[in-house]
Amino acid sequence: MELRPPYLMFLGDAADQLAAKTAAGVAHWRPDWCVGQFRMEGCKADLGLTDMTLEQARDAGVNTLLVGVANRGGRISQAWQDVFLRALDLGMDIASGLHNKLTALPAVRERAEKLGRSLHDVRHPTQDFDVANGIRRSGKRLLAVGTDCSVGKMYTTLALEQEMRARGMKADFRATGQTGIFIAGSGVSIDAVIADFISGAVEWLTPENEPDHWDLVEGQGSLFHASFAGVTIGLIHGAQPDALVLCHEPTRRHMRGLPGYPLPDLGLCMERNLEAAQLTNPDVRFVGVAINTAGLEAAAADRLLKETADRFGLPAVDPVRQGVGAIVDGLPT
Amino acid sequence: MELRPPYLMFLGDAADQLAAKTAAGVAHWRPDWCVGQFRMEGCKADLGLTDMTLEQARDAGVNTLLVGVANRGGRISQAWQDVFLRALDLGMDIASGLHNKLTALPAVRERAEKLGRSLHDVRHPTQDFDVANGIRRSGKRLLAVGTDCSVGKMYTTLALEQEMRARGMKADFRATGQTGIFIAGSGVSIDAVIADFISGAVEWLTPENEPDHWDLVEGQGSLFHASFAGVTIGLIHGAQPDALVLCHEPTRRHMRGLPGYPLPDLGLCMERNLEAAQLTNPDVRFVGVAINTAGLEAAAADRLLKETADRFGLPAVDPVRQGVGAIVDGLPT
Repeated sequence: MELRPPYLMFLGDAADQLAAKTAAGVAHWRPDWCVGQFRMEGCKADLGLTDMTLEQARDAGVNTLLVGVANRGGRISQAWQDVFLRALDLGMDIASGLHNKLTALPAVRERAEKLGRSLHDVRHPTQDFDVANGIRRSGKRLLAVGTDCSVGKMYTTLALEQEMRARGMKADFRATGQTGIFIAGSGVSIDAVIADFISGAVEWLTPENEPDHWDLVEGQGSLFHASFAGVTIGLIHGAQPDALVLCHEPTRRHMRGLPGYPLPDLGLCMERNLEAAQLTNPDVRFVGVAINTAGLEAAAADRLLKETADRFGLPAVDPVRQGVGAIVDGLPT
Repeated sequence: MELRPPYLMFLGDAADQLAAKTAAGVAHWRPDWCVGQFRMEGCKADLGLTDMTLEQARDAGVNTLLVGVANRGGRISQAWQDVFLRALDLGMDIASGLHNKLTALPAVRERAEKLGRSLHDVRHPTQDFDVANGIRRSGKRLLAVGTDCSVGKMYTTLALEQEMRARGMKADFRATGQTGIFIAGSGVSIDAVIADFISGAVEWLTPENEPDHWDLVEGQGSLFHASFAGVTIGLIHGAQPDALVLCHEPTRRHMRGLPGYPLPDLGLCMERNLEAAQLTNPDVRFVGVAINTAGLEAAAADRLLKETADRFGLPAVDPVRQGVGAIVDGLPT
């Protein structure tokens, strides 16, 4: 799956800004790829991009209509389908992060086939992967792991890519979730892969590379999340990371979606992730801690970051507030 | 998926006895369900069951043709399909452990639909599962874990079921792989579930039960297997085991399929499995070690079992040679 930017961001009739959070992530990280937004009657989301008709988007060189929005009621309406059909007619591919598949819409599938356009259902890998072979690959890899889901793993790896590229380093963000895939233009929705092939899919996603090249692998879930740890450990084993960054959100009261499950201690969490990662790369080590301090006041945030840095002897940053330069400074060479 | 015994064991034109190893496992554990075998020209496997025509099997009350054999060249031949069609005509369902799906054979699928028969592709779960919720369930659960794949986890849990039922205990084997599903008559091929739902599928497979009821959950893979640990940890978290049994094969030179990956130390393996299991059941403990000593001479086997029992203060048995009574003796009540 290779998406073709630039994108027209389809916001449909999004009920609020949160419904367009995938699109907002793409617009934040790939402003050059997002040439405009397409909104329908009743749309309550706004990415701050130029509103465009499909025809204007075509004239602006858009190659892909990107559906990075939640659909109301979990069903793709006829009004949405009419937009998709017109986009296909105008020469665009469509990439969607919806649970419902574009390819399950007969009219859309038939039109795309007839016109030779691509439909990308990024939540639904269509590729067959091999079982992981565990063989070490050249090149370096960094993986973001977390105390929980949704604690900033994607943001942290994208910030690392930006910082490393700015320093002239060879670095590629490797996407494992839908928003990341839109941002990278390719990737694998790793939580939707068949269980036997989790690690194999990650080996495929992060192939051998030049010795000084870094893959920055988007993490998923947490070893301490009772629903998703299988995805997490498969990612760890397949990525064979040289470097780990621990991501954390300090105001979380319990594991996401699991009342009664407290968040792990950061030290224990690092220990378990290291143990798991050592299976496929004995030289792995932590290179930093990324804490989302948006929910803390500035003084409390500074104190927490300093305490964390002192406790582990590692850079501890909020990627939004301080950037990730301190982590890049300490990467193994 | 609920299979309907009794079974006619379809051996096709199996190239050797190993090609029928799934069928052999079913015949061993469910002799009452296996009323005969169906062999075609060139078949080199023999389960020691009565050879039957499809008509004889029908007259003997067979409800399901069980395809527990590897197909040559990975393709379902026309000769096999003709047998399947005739079995459907005679009133049988078909249950298959082949990688290729029965439901992907148009003639077989259409005949089954027309006649109202069931086609069970046990390697391919068709059900949708929920994400695991991590909520503790009543009833007790034992899970077999291993140093590696194929070290006797299914055999051990089935031996436990047999022993516990003989003692009048409430116990059900819960199948997570194809052979186990044929033996239990139901189950989930857990390595074929979408990664996000591994633990959720196991929660579904081992639902709440009477306080003195034991689910004996077939394990898969190993936390130390670089290809399959995601399946293993998802199984551990979903099963919420009260009791773990460690399974081991002492002559294995490296992890199955992974040259260069040594087997873990038994103590380290137990420690990591306990740590993982404590996430969803803090009271979990190991209750025994099951070692497949078929590759050792009797004296060496006895010595290894004694050393292992002494080292861990747990019963250590070869389920084939000594049975699993010593493990059942020590189960928590």
